[in-house]
Amino acid sequence: MRFAVLGTGDVGKAIGAGLVSQGHDIRVGSRSSGDGRHTFAEAALWAEVVVNATKGAASLEALRSAGAANLAGKVLIDVANPLDFSKGMPPTLFVQGDDSLGERIQREFPQARVVKTLNTMGASIMANPRRLKEEHDVFLSGNDKAAKELVAGILRAWGWKVILDLGDITTARGTEMLMPLWIRLLGTIGNADYNFHVAR
Amino acid sequence: MRFAVLGTGDVGKAIGAGLVSQGHDIRVGSRSSGDGRHTFAEAALWAEVVVNATKGAASLEALRSAGAANLAGKVLIDVANPLDFSKGMPPTLFVQGDDSLGERIQREFPQARVVKTLNTMGASIMANPRRLKEEHDVFLSGNDKAAKELVAGILRAWGWKVILDLGDITTARGTEMLMPLWIRLLGTIGNADYNFHVAR
Repeated sequence: MRFAVLGTGDVGKAIGAGLVSQGHDIRVGSRSSGDGRHTFAEAALWAEVVVNATKGAASLEALRSAGAANLAGKVLIDVANPLDFSKGMPPTLFVQGDDSLGERIQREFPQARVVKTLNTMGASIMANPRRLKEEHDVFLSGNDKAAKELVAGILRAWGWKVILDLGDITTARGTEMLMPLWIRLLGTIGNADYNFHVAR
Repeated sequence: MRFAVLGTGDVGKAIGAGLVSQGHDIRVGSRSSGDGRHTFAEAALWAEVVVNATKGAASLEALRSAGAANLAGKVLIDVANPLDFSKGMPPTLFVQGDDSLGERIQREFPQARVVKTLNTMGASIMANPRRLKEEHDVFLSGNDKAAKELVAGILRAWGWKVILDLGDITTARGTEMLMPLWIRLLGTIGNADYNFHVAR
């Protein structure tokens, strides 16, 4: 399939590499074109599936640049977290409580089929879950069942075994709120090779 | 040791039973005495260690009733979450961002040695971690190292193997923010027999 990966940071690179390894075609979208990059709008127009791998604080602006018409009807995989670094470390969240970044994106682009996932772990694990020895989990939030199934298929191809569908896009509130703990665990564990597992 | 358990709900009962099973003496504190219960102040005055197992929205009031003088110098194990049910289900948090209930308690009772723990799981697992087959974790947040060691000893006696010390009381922000996901997982999993594990 044709994937637009919006964002050129560690997350965009990890997801882009993971998609290429599964035989997908990707175009990387960024603010400006050049260096093999396309603009957000060029990448989204061309793609069948769009991945929002931009920083949370820049996501809505990037998706506006991509263009609502270029997102309409398409699966929009939202990996971003609403981290606010304006007061330094540790960051707080700029959306929380009874709203989430995933919901804001779905509200502003009602024709996009938003699936929130992969936002609860470090970039190196997203497309490479076998990097950890223990069993660990990835969550899905979204209103569109078929969109979630498509995303689950991509995740399974990468080696994900436990894919927990939490429900509609409002459940993104819970996964976005994992980040404050995830960041503190960096200090306790000393590296980013960990992820959450729901033990039974 | 002598433990005051403030709160008579499922959490207070589970922790009280767990402490009794380890040979500790407990007094249950509630708003009013009678039925083998003591007031918050009576229980706290008598105790060496105080457990806040009240509802988050009632915790500061309960601790004021217990009395700052009766908490001074004592380990105060805070198990509560700042859940706000005023808008119905799912609840939101009434403290979040750059503050937490654990910090509010520590600020208002600076002489108490607050340790936030056990607030990331269902009551039935707190003093009985072997209820789950898989490995799973409990977190500690607090400013006082000796207080955290005392709490870790209690947790180990109950069977806890992975006890993750996140750092000072500000790290309670992260664990209190797990609740919105924990509540959604009830719907996905269908019962409360689960807990978080940081997989490596």
